[in-house]
Amino acid sequence: MTEISTLGEFGLIEHITRDIKLVQSSSLRGIGDDAAVMSYPDTRVLMTTDLLLENVHFSLAYVPLKHLGYKAAVVNFSDIYAMNGTPRQITVSLGISKRFTVEHIEELYSGIRLACDIYGVDIVGGDTTASHQGLVISITCIGDARPDDIVTRDGARNTDLICVSGNLGAAYMGLQLLERERIASAGNKDFEPAFAGKEYIIERQLKPEARRDVVKALADAGIKPTAMMDVSDGLSSELLHICKQSRCGCRIYEDRIPIDYQTAVMAEEINMNLVTAALNGGEDYELLFTVPLTDHDKVSAIESVKVIGYITKEEDGCAMITRDGAEMTLRAQGWNPLK
Amino acid sequence: MTEISTLGEFGLIEHITRDIKLVQSSSLRGIGDDAAVMSYPDTRVLMTTDLLLENVHFSLAYVPLKHLGYKAAVVNFSDIYAMNGTPRQITVSLGISKRFTVEHIEELYSGIRLACDIYGVDIVGGDTTASHQGLVISITCIGDARPDDIVTRDGARNTDLICVSGNLGAAYMGLQLLERERIASAGNKDFEPAFAGKEYIIERQLKPEARRDVVKALADAGIKPTAMMDVSDGLSSELLHICKQSRCGCRIYEDRIPIDYQTAVMAEEINMNLVTAALNGGEDYELLFTVPLTDHDKVSAIESVKVIGYITKEEDGCAMITRDGAEMTLRAQGWNPLK
Repeated sequence: MTEISTLGEFGLIEHITRDIKLVQSSSLRGIGDDAAVMSYPDTRVLMTTDLLLENVHFSLAYVPLKHLGYKAAVVNFSDIYAMNGTPRQITVSLGISKRFTVEHIEELYSGIRLACDIYGVDIVGGDTTASHQGLVISITCIGDARPDDIVTRDGARNTDLICVSGNLGAAYMGLQLLERERIASAGNKDFEPAFAGKEYIIERQLKPEARRDVVKALADAGIKPTAMMDVSDGLSSELLHICKQSRCGCRIYEDRIPIDYQTAVMAEEINMNLVTAALNGGEDYELLFTVPLTDHDKVSAIESVKVIGYITKEEDGCAMITRDGAEMTLRAQGWNPLK
Repeated sequence: MTEISTLGEFGLIEHITRDIKLVQSSSLRGIGDDAAVMSYPDTRVLMTTDLLLENVHFSLAYVPLKHLGYKAAVVNFSDIYAMNGTPRQITVSLGISKRFTVEHIEELYSGIRLACDIYGVDIVGGDTTASHQGLVISITCIGDARPDDIVTRDGARNTDLICVSGNLGAAYMGLQLLERERIASAGNKDFEPAFAGKEYIIERQLKPEARRDVVKALADAGIKPTAMMDVSDGLSSELLHICKQSRCGCRIYEDRIPIDYQTAVMAEEINMNLVTAALNGGEDYELLFTVPLTDHDKVSAIESVKVIGYITKEEDGCAMITRDGAEMTLRAQGWNPLK
C-alpha cells in the first residue's frame, strides 16, 4: 500500500492519468493544462473544474458565504482566461450539511451569481445534495476561444520573457491576517479585528478577481503569449510547470517580483520572509506568461504587467537571482492539499 | 430561517434558480433538463454534472470502488443520452480522505476509465484534493448533438405515447438486498451473502449501464421522441417532471410497467409493494420518453422498449390506472437526498 501523501497532489494526478488516452477527435487537449480543449466547428470549447471542501479549501470562520461563492466561480473563470479564452457557462454542484439553512445557500449562490454577472457567464446546471459533514462546492466552467488564440503551458522558448500581472503574495498574507485575528478573537465577544490599513490583502484573499483585463490588454497590444497559466499554487510552483511542460529553464529576479505594500507590512508583522510569501503563497490568480523577446517594448507598456525574468535552455535549470546576485534554485513549495 | 428539509431537493433548486437568466447567446438551455445545451457552430454542446458523497449516495461497505467509478461515469453519460446526444468528454474531481491509499484511487479510476472505454468518452480534466471525511466524487460530462436531434423534457403533447426502456425497480431492489446482507454479516467473519439467483438486481445497482442502445434503436427506427429523460429518481418523479415542463397530464397502466422477475422475488421476500418499488425506486437509468401516437407501431417493434401509457391534457392530472381499474394519483416519492 502506498500512502497518498508520499506522492502529493501532482504526483497522484500524474500517477492516475499517466496512460489516459484521448479517443475523440474533438479532444485536442485533456489533462495537464488549466482547461481542456475540445474542437467543434470554427471554435474551441474550453472546460475546467474545481472542487472546494470546507476546512480544506476554506473556513467559514472567516469567509462570508457570499465571498466564498464569488471566489469559487472566479477561480474557474481564471483558468479559462489563462488559456486565452472566454468563460461562457458554469455548472454548480453543492453538497450541504444540515447546519446550513436556505438563507445560507442563497447567500452562497448570490456570490456565485454576482461573479457570473460581472464576467458575463451563465449558470447552466449543477447538482445539489446532502452532505454529512461540511460544505462541498464543485464548479465546472466551459468557455471558448478561436483555435489560433489558445495559449497552453508548453510553448515557452529559450530567451522568451517571463511576465506576471498584478502582484504576488497578497492573498496568502490576507489569509495569515484573517487567521491571526480569528485566533485572537476566540472567546472574546467584543473583539475588534485589526484590519485597518490591510483591506487590500483581505480583499485579495476573500474576493479575488480573474485577470480578464490583462487578457484583453495583451490582445489589444497584439501580443500572443507563448505560454500562460494562472498563479493559484504560487509563482514558484507555476513557473516550474511551464518550464517542465515547455522543456526549458528560467531565471527570475528577486527584485522584479511585484509585491504590494500591504503584503510587505503584513510579512514584517508576522516575521515571515516576504519573497517566500510571494514565491509560494497561493491563490493570487494573477496571470503568469511568457512572450517572445521581440515583444519586450509592447509588454512593458502594459501597466499591470511586469517582466520578471527570462526563459533559458532546459539544462540551465530554474532559478531566482537574489538581490545579492546569488542563484537560488526554484522549488515547488506551494500548498499541497493532499499533505 | 428556513430549514432546507422543508423545501426538499427540487424545491431548493427551484428556489435558488428561479430567476437565473441566461445572457450568452450560446446558452440555449440552462438548468431544468438532464443537460445544458450550448450552441456552437453547426453543433450543440451538452453538459451535465453529478456530485456523489460517501454515505449519502454510496456506501463502501458494499460497493467495490471500481464499480463505484464505473457508475459515477455512466450516470453522467446517461444524462447526455437522455438529451438524445452523445457523451464526448468528462472531468473528474475527487476529494479523498486519509484512509484511502493510492491503490484505492487507482481502483476507483479503473472503473471510471472502463466506463469511458466502453462508451468512447475522454477524461479531459479534473481536480484532486484532500477531504477531511469520506470520498467525494464530482463528474462533469459534455457531449454533443445535431441541433435538430436534441430532445428536452418539455415537448410531450396530448395523446403522445409514454414509453420506457428495460425494466424498473431492479436497482432499488438490488440496494435492499445488499443492505440486508450487510446487516446480516455484521460481526460474522464467515458470513456468505445470499446473492444466488439475484445477480441481476445486484448488477443493476452496482454496475448500471446508460441506454445508448435505445437511443440508437430510436434513431434507426426513424423516431424522434417528443420528450425524454433518464429514470434516476424513480418513474413517478420523472414522469411528473415531463408533465410539469410539458404542461400536460398522463395516464400509465400498472400492468404495463416492466418489472424483472428477480425484482419481484426480492420485493416479495422483503414484503415490499412491487409497484411502489418500480414507481419510486431510483437509479434505474432507463430512458423514459414520449412519442407521437403515429409512431405506435414503430416504437412497439423495438424490443427493449415498452409503451406504458399516454399523455393527456394538463387538467386531467397525472395518474396510474391500477390493475383493478382505479385511478391512483402519481406523487414524487423519489429518493430525497436532502431529507
